Amino acid sequence: MPRFFIAASNIFGGVAYLSAKEIEHLRALRIRHGESFTVCDGAGQDYTCRLTRLNDDGAEAEVVDIAPSAGEPSVFCAVYTAYSKGDKLETVVQKSVELGATELVLFPSARCVSKPETLSVLHKTSRLQKIAEEAAKQSGRGKIPWVTAVHSFENAVLSASKNELPLFLYESEKQQSLKDVLDGSAGVKTVSIMTGPEGGFEPEEAAFAAENGMKSVSVGPRILRCETAPVAALAAVMYHTGNL
Amino acid sequence: MPRFFIAASNIFGGVAYLSAKEIEHLRALRIRHGESFTVCDGAGQDYTCRLTRLNDDGAEAEVVDIAPSAGEPSVFCAVYTAYSKGDKLETVVQKSVELGATELVLFPSARCVSKPETLSVLHKTSRLQKIAEEAAKQSGRGKIPWVTAVHSFENAVLSASKNELPLFLYESEKQQSLKDVLDGSAGVKTVSIMTGPEGGFEPEEAAFAAENGMKSVSVGPRILRCETAPVAALAAVMYHTGNL
Repeated sequence: MPRFFIAASNIFGGVAYLSAKEIEHLRALRIRHGESFTVCDGAGQDYTCRLTRLNDDGAEAEVVDIAPSAGEPSVFCAVYTAYSKGDKLETVVQKSVELGATELVLFPSARCVSKPETLSVLHKTSRLQKIAEEAAKQSGRGKIPWVTAVHSFENAVLSASKNELPLFLYESEKQQSLKDVLDGSAGVKTVSIMTGPEGGFEPEEAAFAAENGMKSVSVGPRILRCETAPVAALAAVMYHTGNL
Repeated sequence: MPRFFIAASNIFGGVAYLSAKEIEHLRALRIRHGESFTVCDGAGQDYTCRLTRLNDDGAEAEVVDIAPSAGEPSVFCAVYTAYSKGDKLETVVQKSVELGATELVLFPSARCVSKPETLSVLHKTSRLQKIAEEAAKQSGRGKIPWVTAVHSFENAVLSASKNELPLFLYESEKQQSLKDVLDGSAGVKTVSIMTGPEGGFEPEEAAFAAENGMKSVSVGPRILRCETAPVAALAAVMYHTGNL
């Protein structure tokens, strides 16, 4: 069923009120009077609606059913990705949203080839936010994950380590695998996955992450590209917690 | 350490003989006399070599150590992907090789938007084979996975179902998750992962796969893009079998 995100404040009295942007979308999808679609409040609630009025001013749809969004995973997972070149961040954002990430955070690190300036960060996060929104609609998510940026590696670590299980993917880690750590963390509800740029993390960065409570993990003997590692780790977390 | 694939027949008497293509690569990497690199025979064996001679005719390197490639997973996993539009197959091939797929097989199915003609199939598989080779080198694989194509959906099913655990990713499957099936398949050594095009599989296709022994599985309540589903399922299989 087609899926629309609208603010919860636009759903009241058993009616969902859609604005110009959604009307365009309704028309593009050729949804007609009496036909059904899903309206999502972006807070995890899905409303099955039937179109009752559509004109240039706006559209109204009768709420037929309300249910929690089936597309939201039972685990909160934040994906922290270092800046990388080209369209790799687009790939990470799109795939992470499909796989159930709750938020995406960009950060600079020592080996980042491209570290955007402040203005460019704003452009980048706003473009990636649109990709997240599209991916949330397409994959049937109940929430649109936020894409934000922090200005330093240290702040990224401090923020990521607030979650119960903060994972630091480090290619020089040879002792502890992602599986070891997940197997030892039954019932965990909030996870962070932090991955580096093309050249990986510096040993000093790994030490800082460990000092601040992050769990250094390997994702196997193969070298994964910087855009593959977070997606593979997220798929593993979702699989492990019964969300894939 | 830089990684070169050469035929096993070019490694004998404790010496690896490199041809024009590899010489170009050695020069690009500025590898000098006495320096070490890894030569892989593409059959799962790694040779640590030291450059002893390099000129325009060829190069020779002394074999210092021989060991099984650490980059090969303990499970054989074939990824069967339906034809899709744009550069999605490139993504699937590259990521699947990084994550440890042993082979990639393309096939047409009912809802494929693009079904290439014979000549175009040859072009496509040969381009994808190059991507597989690059990804194998970059990720440290011990074998270069083959990229092949079969001419019908039915043949793809018959081929995929020869592996011990042939998984058929079907978005209308609501009973059985990938995790259910993997949890019930301890010690499995050969796996197939089969995924559909943008529009998914037809019910008749799912029925044919089931009749031929494939296990229909869901990968969660979210709708994954056709290029995300095989990569996520492969990551889960590798995670489950201790290869991620």
